[in-house]
Amino acid sequence: MNKTYWSEQIKAQTPYVAGEQPKSADLVKLNTNENPYPPSPRVLDAIREAVNADLRLYPPVPDSPGIFRGNGSDELLAMAFIAFFNGRKLYAPDVTYSFYPVWARMFGAEYLPIELNRDFTVPVERFCGVDGCVILANPNAPTGVALELRDVERIVASNAGHVVLIDESYIDFADVVSAESLVERYPNLLIVKTLSKSYSLAGLRAAYAKGSEELIAGLRVVRDCFNSYTMDRLALAGAYAALADTEYLAETCGAIIATREQTAATLREMGFDVTQSSANFVFAAHSLVPAERLYRELRDRGVLVRWWNLPRIENYLRITIGTDESMRRLIAALEEILR
Amino acid sequence: MNKTYWSEQIKAQTPYVAGEQPKSADLVKLNTNENPYPPSPRVLDAIREAVNADLRLYPPVPDSPGIFRGNGSDELLAMAFIAFFNGRKLYAPDVTYSFYPVWARMFGAEYLPIELNRDFTVPVERFCGVDGCVILANPNAPTGVALELRDVERIVASNAGHVVLIDESYIDFADVVSAESLVERYPNLLIVKTLSKSYSLAGLRAAYAKGSEELIAGLRVVRDCFNSYTMDRLALAGAYAALADTEYLAETCGAIIATREQTAATLREMGFDVTQSSANFVFAAHSLVPAERLYRELRDRGVLVRWWNLPRIENYLRITIGTDESMRRLIAALEEILR
Repeated sequence: MNKTYWSEQIKAQTPYVAGEQPKSADLVKLNTNENPYPPSPRVLDAIREAVNADLRLYPPVPDSPGIFRGNGSDELLAMAFIAFFNGRKLYAPDVTYSFYPVWARMFGAEYLPIELNRDFTVPVERFCGVDGCVILANPNAPTGVALELRDVERIVASNAGHVVLIDESYIDFADVVSAESLVERYPNLLIVKTLSKSYSLAGLRAAYAKGSEELIAGLRVVRDCFNSYTMDRLALAGAYAALADTEYLAETCGAIIATREQTAATLREMGFDVTQSSANFVFAAHSLVPAERLYRELRDRGVLVRWWNLPRIENYLRITIGTDESMRRLIAALEEILR
Repeated sequence: MNKTYWSEQIKAQTPYVAGEQPKSADLVKLNTNENPYPPSPRVLDAIREAVNADLRLYPPVPDSPGIFRGNGSDELLAMAFIAFFNGRKLYAPDVTYSFYPVWARMFGAEYLPIELNRDFTVPVERFCGVDGCVILANPNAPTGVALELRDVERIVASNAGHVVLIDESYIDFADVVSAESLVERYPNLLIVKTLSKSYSLAGLRAAYAKGSEELIAGLRVVRDCFNSYTMDRLALAGAYAALADTEYLAETCGAIIATREQTAATLREMGFDVTQSSANFVFAAHSLVPAERLYRELRDRGVLVRWWNLPRIENYLRITIGTDESMRRLIAALEEILR
């Protein structure tokens, strides 16, 4: 294809490729970390109410002190790259969310991977006192491995001159604690959370960031130089209702955690090396059968998981935690393949 | 406020300021070109149905040949600036949508205003065969003045080496024709349309762009380096239903056009110079009373309109066309002020 009209900037990009969204409903879809449970009924009620109210009017701008809301955590992260990482060094784990290097290239940050330990834990010392910004997913993706709050704090405190962004997209499935409580003490700390996973709202596009006045104001500048209204009225209504229903969150996350632990145990019995996951997925490598083959043969049997042909992780599968029934189908398919 | 953590890029920006969204419902709100009529009932039905279906899953990516869908026309325009205008010259009318220079600065285009004629019509010749890209709102904002299709075609045809973007946010209120029909013949032409105004869906965030394979692919690169899912499932369902209900569109736009013509005639009788508007607003300057005073005194009387303290237009008010009742309140307030 001709690219005469493309700017030099976009000619140089390699876009992120999201997990496949198949048309067929027959598949067991364990490839994009969606929640197997529906959103809280209160969310659906709140949206139904909002449908009747003023869709003809622009949405309110959802600004409140210390918080910035947007259209999914990917949008917030992209805006943070423009606001804070453009023209700067950015340290990240060598194995992490593969959108980070895409944003770095797109928005002019110098992306510097730091090697994780062999068990995919973060070498905390190496992220302390660096000469640039830091981005860490906690729990990390696609490994599921989490950092304790005290380790997050060490990294944040030792990099006072640079922004440290903690992407907590999966924190509600973890036993480690969110770093939100640190925001008041560290003006360089930005936390990003999404409603896509733990609140079962991937289809609604809602997320938020917490940080100091300076960081939140920076994100607002980017938004107001891009698109004044990124969250529609229905997403706003749904998001507020979701955040209010803490009981439903605890219940559904609890169910997913229980299924995760059960799945991890079963996979280990089957000869998989399974990381200690604090997320709504497991990350597993079989001792004998290559991940690529498992990935393809699972797909042939109607089970979609995620596999990357990338250094260090090419023998791992990332498997989203679905319902117990979905996991039984996964295990049955794996047993058939490994037999 | 401290800006230590801000990138140099965002320190240099002056964000766009959208029209005020007041909390009070008592105001006659004629300041942000919202449609006074509700969306089609079919839109509301389609959204209600979508609420029950799979909000837990990521939305489908709404790609189809020659069309790119997104979260409002502002988002599409911002992405077009990155994809096509970055690092290039960009010609635009000196009086036009004030977000254009904001995006130009934010995304690295050299913004070059060309003076409109005294009556705010476009000097077509001056936009032909230029040494850079072109952006034109048609009808233009905030003037409401439209370009005939043959003039759009002359500009597009004479700039084959550069992208010409026609922002048709207000075209459904015009008697001139959309340039969509030209897209097949001119690979440099990009058309952007929104559902915010004519489809009464400002609160839903939906818009689309039409263009050649190359241009649409460029927009996809930007999106996939930014946020893979910009339109949520509810916005997609509502947008498709809105576009299908052409009868409702014709009916509500017809009502707004009738009110606009009536309002323009009345304002002229009251001593206003009113441009020939093809949009859902009028642009009017009084021969004796400064616009700033009218703006403030209207606000005191509960009528919100838009006023800019900018060269050439500082004596104009942009007044959104509301219901006949809203316009009666506007006229009554103006009569009181001018008495």
